[in-house]
Amino acid sequence: MTASGSRVRPRGDRKHHEASCPAACGDACLREAVTRHLEDFLGRRSPAVAGLDVDFADEVLDRLARFVVEGGKRVRPTFAWWGWRAAGGADDGPEAASALRAASALELVQAFALFQDDVMDKSEVRRGEPAVHVRFANDHRSKRWLGDPDHYGQSAALLAGDLALVWAEDMFTEALSHMPDARERARGPWRAMHTEMVVGQFLDMRSQARGDTAESTPLRVNRLKTAAYSAERPLHLGAALADANEKVVQALRRYGEAVGSAYQLRDDLLDLYGEPAQTGKAVGADLREGKRTLLLAVGLRRARERGDREAVRMLDSAIGDPGLPDADVRAVADLLAALGAKKAVEQRLAALLREGTRSLADAPITPMAYEELRRRADGAITRAT
Amino acid sequence: MTASGSRVRPRGDRKHHEASCPAACGDACLREAVTRHLEDFLGRRSPAVAGLDVDFADEVLDRLARFVVEGGKRVRPTFAWWGWRAAGGADDGPEAASALRAASALELVQAFALFQDDVMDKSEVRRGEPAVHVRFANDHRSKRWLGDPDHYGQSAALLAGDLALVWAEDMFTEALSHMPDARERARGPWRAMHTEMVVGQFLDMRSQARGDTAESTPLRVNRLKTAAYSAERPLHLGAALADANEKVVQALRRYGEAVGSAYQLRDDLLDLYGEPAQTGKAVGADLREGKRTLLLAVGLRRARERGDREAVRMLDSAIGDPGLPDADVRAVADLLAALGAKKAVEQRLAALLREGTRSLADAPITPMAYEELRRRADGAITRAT
Repeated sequence: MTASGSRVRPRGDRKHHEASCPAACGDACLREAVTRHLEDFLGRRSPAVAGLDVDFADEVLDRLARFVVEGGKRVRPTFAWWGWRAAGGADDGPEAASALRAASALELVQAFALFQDDVMDKSEVRRGEPAVHVRFANDHRSKRWLGDPDHYGQSAALLAGDLALVWAEDMFTEALSHMPDARERARGPWRAMHTEMVVGQFLDMRSQARGDTAESTPLRVNRLKTAAYSAERPLHLGAALADANEKVVQALRRYGEAVGSAYQLRDDLLDLYGEPAQTGKAVGADLREGKRTLLLAVGLRRARERGDREAVRMLDSAIGDPGLPDADVRAVADLLAALGAKKAVEQRLAALLREGTRSLADAPITPMAYEELRRRADGAITRAT
Repeated sequence: MTASGSRVRPRGDRKHHEASCPAACGDACLREAVTRHLEDFLGRRSPAVAGLDVDFADEVLDRLARFVVEGGKRVRPTFAWWGWRAAGGADDGPEAASALRAASALELVQAFALFQDDVMDKSEVRRGEPAVHVRFANDHRSKRWLGDPDHYGQSAALLAGDLALVWAEDMFTEALSHMPDARERARGPWRAMHTEMVVGQFLDMRSQARGDTAESTPLRVNRLKTAAYSAERPLHLGAALADANEKVVQALRRYGEAVGSAYQLRDDLLDLYGEPAQTGKAVGADLREGKRTLLLAVGLRRARERGDREAVRMLDSAIGDPGLPDADVRAVADLLAALGAKKAVEQRLAALLREGTRSLADAPITPMAYEELRRRADGAITRAT
């Protein structure tokens, strides 16, 4: 248990708009501003929750706050910010700060999604540390409580996630309390994103259960679970806050769908070809869990087309084997490269990024946002984490 | 899988306010109006979700819709309605319909809470039928899918619950789109209820893990998990929609806290002394699950005060024993009665109801609402389900 003294505290009388982001200071500053908004929101909530139950504040809120404040690449708030800026939203001042604060609530939605996904996927590691459900289970074990520590850990992590989802709504709503028209406009993408996230997670899970081998399935899962949720809707949200016209919204959404899908393909490649020290995840974690990626679907199809039964058998038996040795993970990675599946996915990824950037080129968005978004598309190819 | 044809469909051009509730027709009509609002909302959502994924619509949305439309006593929307009426809200017309529609969203929050609680509590039966996670697990088994059917069932039920929570927000927000001031007022209790629900569920779970025997713990859990969530905040919500003054809000909240707590005490008594045919739950389900009720806490304290080690041992070993035979459940029930714990809880229950009703007696609320709420307090003593 963490001592109450270390809990995230409100930042006194600091005003929201002090946490805005001047253009000159770039991405690092944007990330820092998001962190400050989250710290401030959670700190303001802390006393009321401690009033309901001090142990809940120490055990659950503190863990949620640390996860949200310390971690994450702020991908979703950053996309929302550039959606706002692309549509002509101001770089500084109270409205910019409110928009960024609303966008920061996406990090709470993300905490919800990660806590829950890690329980559903039985992932033990997150951001190079024990997953939240593992930490709660360890609390239970070390205190020799009654019942099954793992079940307790999972339930506690799910509740911490619920709190994050509930508070995301509060943070979003409160941040825009002085911009009611903008809030009404942004509510569409904000709400749609929530539904798409749930549907995407269900499709992902069911495709694993079904042993689905169609290439269309990972593409659809990627579109809902990653692209819509991580890029398309955040960009849409930011653009809606800035009262963008339909043409701008459509261009940003097409870009977001393409770049978000590409991002997931890169993630799939990193699962087999990445460096654990950089990704913060064990090599082959998705493979062992049984995740049906495009990479595997293409590999399986090509092996079948070649009549290579040994390759089909090897892939089939590796997918979803939780005890698969590292050497076999490497063998699968080599096999997929030999089958040309790795190259096919890399090509598709590059095509998606070109398509995404092209959709922006003739949209009436600010050139600075265009440059920034183009840079992000390029970065999605080379990222190692 | 359910054929798409049977899915809940939109009710064509029926207007929301046609689903309002004229005073003359009483509770049965109120329940029917809530059902119609839910059917209408879910039916309107169905095509968009089927557009995302038709199987999701058939497997998840259909199951959620049936659970919400067919089941439930509509306790929370009813309290919200009487909060609205107590504070002078109209009985009919578009505003009344919007208020009732917003209140109906509480049934979606409840579906979220029940799906999740049943997973966390490993409860197999709900409303006399297999729990939702059991149904999903059965799908998995009958289709011979890959992986663990129970884990799949739990994950799918959690996602169905997420959808319910996300859509509760949508339904609440949309219902009040033409009453923006009322929505702003109601957002306070609506949001607070969400946080309290999560904190209450965590405290409940942790008190079981800790084997907590303090009598203050079940009282606090009851206050957050049942009273605030099921009565106090719904009443507060309805009153806020009707722009109630602080005096009315305070009186209704005090009533809700008392009656909601009493309701939970009755639930605890029914677990050991109720008729399964009426409650829809197995006798002793809470006892086997390890739920720390006031009834058990009082029984344990009294057994200790009497130095009755045999009774202490019997209670300690029965609580949380999932395989406890029915005969032993009956023995525990008899022991708690002999220790005077049953009577003590019944007395406390009656005192809470008196206190609740008294808090209304000198509040400036409508006499019709006073009569209705007094009747509900009386009903909480005699209810058998």
